[in-house]
Amino acid sequence: MLSKNTLKFIKSLHQKKFRKQENSFFVEGEKNVMELLASDFDVTHLLFTSKFGNEHSSLLSDFDGEAFEVTQKVLESVGFFQTNDVALAVATTKANAPLEIRPNDLMLALDDVRDPGNLGTIIRIADWYGIQNIALSTESADFYNPKVLHSSMGSFTRVNVYYTDLNIFLPKSKLPVYGAFMEGESIHEAELTPSGIILMGNESNGISDALAPLVTKKLTIPKFGNAESLNVAIATAVICDNFRRK
Amino acid sequence: MLSKNTLKFIKSLHQKKFRKQENSFFVEGEKNVMELLASDFDVTHLLFTSKFGNEHSSLLSDFDGEAFEVTQKVLESVGFFQTNDVALAVATTKANAPLEIRPNDLMLALDDVRDPGNLGTIIRIADWYGIQNIALSTESADFYNPKVLHSSMGSFTRVNVYYTDLNIFLPKSKLPVYGAFMEGESIHEAELTPSGIILMGNESNGISDALAPLVTKKLTIPKFGNAESLNVAIATAVICDNFRRK
Repeated sequence: MLSKNTLKFIKSLHQKKFRKQENSFFVEGEKNVMELLASDFDVTHLLFTSKFGNEHSSLLSDFDGEAFEVTQKVLESVGFFQTNDVALAVATTKANAPLEIRPNDLMLALDDVRDPGNLGTIIRIADWYGIQNIALSTESADFYNPKVLHSSMGSFTRVNVYYTDLNIFLPKSKLPVYGAFMEGESIHEAELTPSGIILMGNESNGISDALAPLVTKKLTIPKFGNAESLNVAIATAVICDNFRRK
Repeated sequence: MLSKNTLKFIKSLHQKKFRKQENSFFVEGEKNVMELLASDFDVTHLLFTSKFGNEHSSLLSDFDGEAFEVTQKVLESVGFFQTNDVALAVATTKANAPLEIRPNDLMLALDDVRDPGNLGTIIRIADWYGIQNIALSTESADFYNPKVLHSSMGSFTRVNVYYTDLNIFLPKSKLPVYGAFMEGESIHEAELTPSGIILMGNESNGISDALAPLVTKKLTIPKFGNAESLNVAIATAVICDNFRRK
């Protein structure tokens, strides 16, 4: 039976402090739970409704963590979603391991992207464009924040992240560093190498003054109208799309 | 003095029903309030903190609607933002007028985009890429929803929207209709005309079966990794960027 202590434990994982302390995180909803179960993450707890249980009985019999059939009401009381009639899974976090940079790699670096929705969307974009590695400044949103994982739509299982000091990481990588600036060269015209680091800045302040000198090529997304700027996830997608053109 | 009735009136504008009934909407925060005041919208009420008043005294003396200096607490109690120490403005909605389609126009059509954040972000993208007109199915998110206006970052003042039956609108426009489908031609290779309608589908279901036959050219965003899909606002940006390339 599902104990009060287990419920309390899962609820505590809404907070970064407890995610770090317990080395655990949770995801919700069909898409993310199924992706998590199919990944190499160690899933420790699975809470599911009878609806989910009926649809995935073989999956449940193979599952070797603790599994509990619960009501929709219980799912919604422990999770982050307002509506969840499917499942919630708890898994062990991975260590913050350095990225394995291969030659010809295209990767992302995020300088203080704070909004969890933006980070999750960027992880999904990276996964779409075949970018496996993201380096993040230590002040960026937490990868295991439920909103990040949710917005990633399962892509968090396929993208590696590494929180580090970008002041040290960028020069050490020996890769060209591309960054978006208002005064950069148009991404429609610039020569974009197949390998390199695309550095994206903070939602309000862009790329910090400390990191700007480490950018080896300044790029800009050409503007045809009057909006002052683009959201950071939108800009990331447009830049990745231009890099992946032949 | 700011009356209880005025506060009640503003609070009612959180709901679409009352926005329609009162032909009014509100926006919050420095960026959107300033863009609204600089636009051709008729601004009827302005609530502002002393901070905003001190910074914009000449603007306030030119303002001919009802202006009230209030505390941050009052702003936050009537608005949608959790934090607002600046201003909130109420304006009159515009009529749902047919779009003026010019030759060589590139425009957007949204088939049931329901999430207010997505609609607001798409309006901002349209404004960036110089797209002035958006036709929306009648089930799409409401343009005057506070979350839509907020995510548009002021671009709602520069983009025209028209809620209509796209089954009638699309053929009547006589423009080529481009739509994103998994099996479409790569946007990196397809010939994209400078005029046309880019049709984007619902968050879960894509372009509806009813509208699919009206698409004259199916497009797809090439995928290099494993994400199942892209968010609709992300896809809109990438497609617009490809259309605007020379």
